[in-house]
Amino acid sequence: VSGLTPAILYFLDSQRAGVLATVSAAGRPRQSVVYYAREGEQLLISTESKRLKARDVERTGWASLCVMGAEQPYPSATVAGPAEILSERIGPATAAIVQRITGAESPPEPQSDEALKDVDRVILRIRVEQVGPVNYLPDS
Amino acid sequence: VSGLTPAILYFLDSQRAGVLATVSAAGRPRQSVVYYAREGEQLLISTESKRLKARDVERTGWASLCVMGAEQPYPSATVAGPAEILSERIGPATAAIVQRITGAESPPEPQSDEALKDVDRVILRIRVEQVGPVNYLPDS
Repeated sequence: VSGLTPAILYFLDSQRAGVLATVSAAGRPRQSVVYYAREGEQLLISTESKRLKARDVERTGWASLCVMGAEQPYPSATVAGPAEILSERIGPATAAIVQRITGAESPPEPQSDEALKDVDRVILRIRVEQVGPVNYLPDS
Repeated sequence: VSGLTPAILYFLDSQRAGVLATVSAAGRPRQSVVYYAREGEQLLISTESKRLKARDVERTGWASLCVMGAEQPYPSATVAGPAEILSERIGPATAAIVQRITGAESPPEPQSDEALKDVDRVILRIRVEQVGPVNYLPDS
């Protein structure tokens, strides 16, 4: 994706959580804090199928993620693109996100789709197509 | 506003920047990092009238702000409401935001509306009506 520079990829990997935005059925912005993992030019978020963010993605097929550093001048990158809700073969992606949450050296053993379905976990996947405001990124 | 608890107000005041979300003309979420100041149940953001976020607000009359703490477990509060773009009597609000950016003990002398208009500065004001996801707030 044009605009998705090494500095942006490095920054996304250096942070663990960001603010997801989707558009509600009423046409309003909906935001929430999420952990994410990156796989190439895709961003992976673990959520529950019943969550409003998941329903927004299923309805609109699009999501945006804004990642912001902790200190002034607040480095940030906003990326967006087509998004979908996945429930098959999501064990490894879910394990990668758990690793990001825990900071463990390696991801846990992936769970089966059946086990994840039992707890309603799905993967919200964004294929980055748009790079929005990017500011004050540290050198990679 | 129901749901806008003292803990949320305290948290908003303890942070200085957050992620603004508006909805674009194409119906997609648009996010950017902004500094903000709080005045009662209103959030004030300084921007330029030509910015897409300002145009989104003028067109849709609504905006969302998600504020997230720096460290795990990432305390956060998401608030939203009717929003508008102001260009009159905006000197004090602009000075309050400058104080938040600089961390100075007191705000700078407010500029006149004419001086702010010369540099295209406007105030994006959100009247908080909705309190969205709120997580892991520190005790106030």
